[in-house]
Amino acid sequence: MRILVTGASGFIGGPLLGMLAAQGHEVIAVSRTVGEGKSAIEWRPANLLEPGVARRLVEETKPEAAVHLAWETTHGAFWSAASNREWLGATLELAGAFASTGGSRFVGIGSCAEYSWRDLRVGAPLPEDACCAPPTLYGASKHAAHEALRALFARAGVSLAWGRIFFPYGPGDRRPTLMTGLIRSLLAGRAAATSSGTQTRDFIHVEDCGRAIAALVTGRAEGAFNIATGIGTRVSEAARLVAAEAGRPELLRLGELGERPDEPAWLVGSVEKIASEIGWRPVVDLETGIRGTVGWWRERMNEESR
Amino acid sequence: MRILVTGASGFIGGPLLGMLAAQGHEVIAVSRTVGEGKSAIEWRPANLLEPGVARRLVEETKPEAAVHLAWETTHGAFWSAASNREWLGATLELAGAFASTGGSRFVGIGSCAEYSWRDLRVGAPLPEDACCAPPTLYGASKHAAHEALRALFARAGVSLAWGRIFFPYGPGDRRPTLMTGLIRSLLAGRAAATSSGTQTRDFIHVEDCGRAIAALVTGRAEGAFNIATGIGTRVSEAARLVAAEAGRPELLRLGELGERPDEPAWLVGSVEKIASEIGWRPVVDLETGIRGTVGWWRERMNEESR
Repeated sequence: MRILVTGASGFIGGPLLGMLAAQGHEVIAVSRTVGEGKSAIEWRPANLLEPGVARRLVEETKPEAAVHLAWETTHGAFWSAASNREWLGATLELAGAFASTGGSRFVGIGSCAEYSWRDLRVGAPLPEDACCAPPTLYGASKHAAHEALRALFARAGVSLAWGRIFFPYGPGDRRPTLMTGLIRSLLAGRAAATSSGTQTRDFIHVEDCGRAIAALVTGRAEGAFNIATGIGTRVSEAARLVAAEAGRPELLRLGELGERPDEPAWLVGSVEKIASEIGWRPVVDLETGIRGTVGWWRERMNEESR
Repeated sequence: MRILVTGASGFIGGPLLGMLAAQGHEVIAVSRTVGEGKSAIEWRPANLLEPGVARRLVEETKPEAAVHLAWETTHGAFWSAASNREWLGATLELAGAFASTGGSRFVGIGSCAEYSWRDLRVGAPLPEDACCAPPTLYGASKHAAHEALRALFARAGVSLAWGRIFFPYGPGDRRPTLMTGLIRSLLAGRAAATSSGTQTRDFIHVEDCGRAIAALVTGRAEGAFNIATGIGTRVSEAARLVAAEAGRPELLRLGELGERPDEPAWLVGSVEKIASEIGWRPVVDLETGIRGTVGWWRERMNEESR
């Protein structure tokens, strides 16, 4: 199948491109920067925020399927960045062009930020039909994109799956997340202060994300699907795993920083629907995933210090 | 100005078309059924839910401005009708065609159903930047339409105003609303049972709606604007005004029906923004408006019974 992937040089694009190429698909990889080349991957540098670019790209490449990963992802800033609306506009242009050039399967990428974060029932993983009332501009724009794509594609006869990713992590993640910060501090031998980390999150390994998206784009079931594990882990527990793996548990200072009161206490996604309708389940457990991530950073930091 | 109006034969379309024509605009009136003709109004029968129809219509008529009133409005059913998504799709097609044929000003029609109905502060009229977390498919689809149009039009350089209508009523309203039911029962001399009517609503006269939309389409300010009065009236109070005007206060049975627990207690919109940025304020007070509405029904029912 001829598959267009936007945001292809990003953290999740990496493993996804490899999996799609390995499955024998012809991949058109779109990104502002050109990533690593495999023969089955055709790189198309493009800035989709420029009006007209998405349409031209799709008209020139005529993909049968598309995975639209590109969006504002600057860590921290993306929650309320005005560019969320620009990405919604770019997404609508891409989708319109995809429908009008005869594309048949589209995978959009959403987020657990689309759900309402109020009244979350601790202990019950969120199903896809949970209330969507996004408290952030990022969540609202992603949710509006899903609603708009559903409407556009239903009219045009395009099949749509919408993957809601929870908390991805793994090798290759250079975003300045809590986990990245922790790993880098501890590997450098510096003390790492954190909040008490009582929030529970659904951490999903980037390779599981890649496999889930590959399964969605080659599958047929439509609708929203959580890309999650169904397993909640306290942030403090994840931090302890990182510290143990880095070999510096004594440098972890849990509770030294204050709490952020606006954060939901609990965000875990049900995987029942994606398992039964798409046949995907996560396979990387958190301990193994963190081991690989710490290992990846150890190599990078050794290279940097050379 | 050459102005396209969709949903033109509807309850709000009626007064709006008359006002726009009286202001000297050239009006293209779109509707599934053809309404009354004035020479400045060109009727274009069309079903916008049919893919391709909106695009052709706009390409043929090349309007400079548009007011998009058309949507699913079947009373009661519209809250959760699946056609809300079809209307979102039709709206995106209309908007895309409008932008690509050089249209410059677009007025979309939203609703107080876009706001979150939780934690409404009784006594404080809702400003346009209040939390939007629509509990209904109707509200969610309207809100997604606004988000999508903002994004599309910002890209294309089209100016967008989004009017959020609260509770319209008035002559010509044949929707089976509480007010219509009350008026018809009382004028027919039948007892009218209602709930206790403790909810507070912002009732806005259809002619005020028409004037507000006419002001929005000929104005320049962008963003969401409440089309409301800023005045809350208990439903029981509105029912008493109707019963008094119909001359049958003894037939009103307030509190005989049970309450609907999912209804918000209080929904009133601030008019500060539309007054200061567009220069519109409502002029019809509820007593005068109800008098006209009851009078309109009295004439119709006399005709029907002849």
